[in-house]
Amino acid sequence: MSATTAYDTNNVFAKILRGELPAHKVYEDDRALVFLDIMPRAPGHALVIPKAPARNILDIEPDDLAYVHQIAQKVAKAGMSAFGADGVTLQQFSEEAGGQVVFHLHVHVIPRVAGVAMKPPASEMENGDILVSHAAKLKAALEA
Amino acid sequence: MSATTAYDTNNVFAKILRGELPAHKVYEDDRALVFLDIMPRAPGHALVIPKAPARNILDIEPDDLAYVHQIAQKVAKAGMSAFGADGVTLQQFSEEAGGQVVFHLHVHVIPRVAGVAMKPPASEMENGDILVSHAAKLKAALEA
Repeated sequence: MSATTAYDTNNVFAKILRGELPAHKVYEDDRALVFLDIMPRAPGHALVIPKAPARNILDIEPDDLAYVHQIAQKVAKAGMSAFGADGVTLQQFSEEAGGQVVFHLHVHVIPRVAGVAMKPPASEMENGDILVSHAAKLKAALEA
Repeated sequence: MSATTAYDTNNVFAKILRGELPAHKVYEDDRALVFLDIMPRAPGHALVIPKAPARNILDIEPDDLAYVHQIAQKVAKAGMSAFGADGVTLQQFSEEAGGQVVFHLHVHVIPRVAGVAMKPPASEMENGDILVSHAAKLKAALEA
């Protein structure tokens, strides 16, 4: 990793932001977008991203990082109620060595139920109908 | 987890904040404290906590959450240089089901070197001299 590593405008999340790829959207405003991970580690696993281009924690503007986490907090609370969760796990990976796969900053918000381990990362593509249903549940809880 | 779960003023990090327990401190201001995890998952594994009492993401004030993450960003960048890291992993656990062990909100900032897996959580107490040395390195990088 070099401090000058450039933002790749063709990463998958940039394409989602431009509407070139679909996503199971949960929330959107002028600064952030929330959608479901298509390979959830638990039901309701959501990703919160800034709209501003940022590769990861090493280059994001501090104000954007703060905003993303304030949205992540709302998503965490909504996930608790929408999925009957007992806790929440947040993760944010920077650079490949840090666990990052898509190079647009994203915060994982994973509702957790007691006694249920998370699936391994990116282990299984979720059924589309289930993702539609889960996105609707999470969206409703966010708006409640 | 109930939405009314109270903050436990006798948790370990509250005692560190009150000076009743020692810590390998790296940074402190009027709103946040950073110190090393004594059971690091990788060298330089730091914890960023708010000074305001907050159990986890479910009850922390949004402004405090934003501030903690802005400090975490600085610690992440400092950890990259101080420990020759190639990436950074951030984690934040809320409630026991979410992986939380100490019930004062904390953000894990873990420098990562390519090809080196993280140790399991809380697996091995680090040598005290090493923690002193690592805290000094991270502090110096933060002040650079």
